[in-house]
Amino acid sequence: MGLFSKDIKTMDNLFLHTLQDIYYAETKLVKALPEMIDIATDAELKQGLQSHLSETHGHVQRLQQVFQMIGQKPKAVNCPAIDGIIEEAEEVTGEVEDKSVLDAAIIAAGQAVEHYEITRYGSLIAWARQLGRADVARLLEQTLTEEKAADKKLTAIAESKVNLKAAS
Amino acid sequence: MGLFSKDIKTMDNLFLHTLQDIYYAETKLVKALPEMIDIATDAELKQGLQSHLSETHGHVQRLQQVFQMIGQKPKAVNCPAIDGIIEEAEEVTGEVEDKSVLDAAIIAAGQAVEHYEITRYGSLIAWARQLGRADVARLLEQTLTEEKAADKKLTAIAESKVNLKAAS
Repeated sequence: MGLFSKDIKTMDNLFLHTLQDIYYAETKLVKALPEMIDIATDAELKQGLQSHLSETHGHVQRLQQVFQMIGQKPKAVNCPAIDGIIEEAEEVTGEVEDKSVLDAAIIAAGQAVEHYEITRYGSLIAWARQLGRADVARLLEQTLTEEKAADKKLTAIAESKVNLKAAS
Repeated sequence: MGLFSKDIKTMDNLFLHTLQDIYYAETKLVKALPEMIDIATDAELKQGLQSHLSETHGHVQRLQQVFQMIGQKPKAVNCPAIDGIIEEAEEVTGEVEDKSVLDAAIIAAGQAVEHYEITRYGSLIAWARQLGRADVARLLEQTLTEEKAADKKLTAIAESKVNLKAAS
């Protein structure tokens, strides 16, 4: 981003900037998720996060494909939002003593991440369609579907047992 | 938060910490929203953000009521997530030259905020229910409903005209 000029002049620019933003976020998650998997105690939660880590690797590859489709090289721009969300996740989970309460905190942190991704992919898909790139929109929709499913899965694990154990 | 001890020992503690987190976020939004209203150009978007600012004042008051219901004084804890989301919103909107593209960027930024709030209120409501505080859950649900409606409203404004103008 330029210091003396406004770099986002068109919708194409805004799309590219947001693509670079979510690319940063997904690659950062690939590094942050193993830590959460490591400290989670509930087996189903651990397994759910593990399978979402595999999906996240796929999301990174899909983004690289989108960069290629629009004739750009994959590049990440700083994303203070995901940095803040991950910093908060590490801060809170580091403060929790009880294991069941920790699992509840991990789920909440994971859902904050999912919701950030859901909103960014939602914008990117709408903009891609508007820019006449239904092919790009379709590809990103596959990721959005997986992010929404991951969020729902976390809710299910929380409501079926983790919150119950944590509050007992 | 203590430097030498883990301060979140129970689900009650996790609930309170997250309540203090969203209290910080809502009070910060009361200050950040006017700036977004100021730079937005589409009349409907401006008006939508303005009415959400009024709602946000109500969300702050509702949180104060929840603090009172659980016998605590309203207190905010640092929330790096909302700080990051707002920092990113200011960074991106500051880079946009074209007015219609700026409106599209403001909508995306607003939706990132809404999704953060949706996920936090979702966790708080589930935890309140688990802790036997259906009364608290019901109050927070009123806010959650308004956050979801604000998110949908932004999508509608984006899809009905802003994205169309921005991409033309």
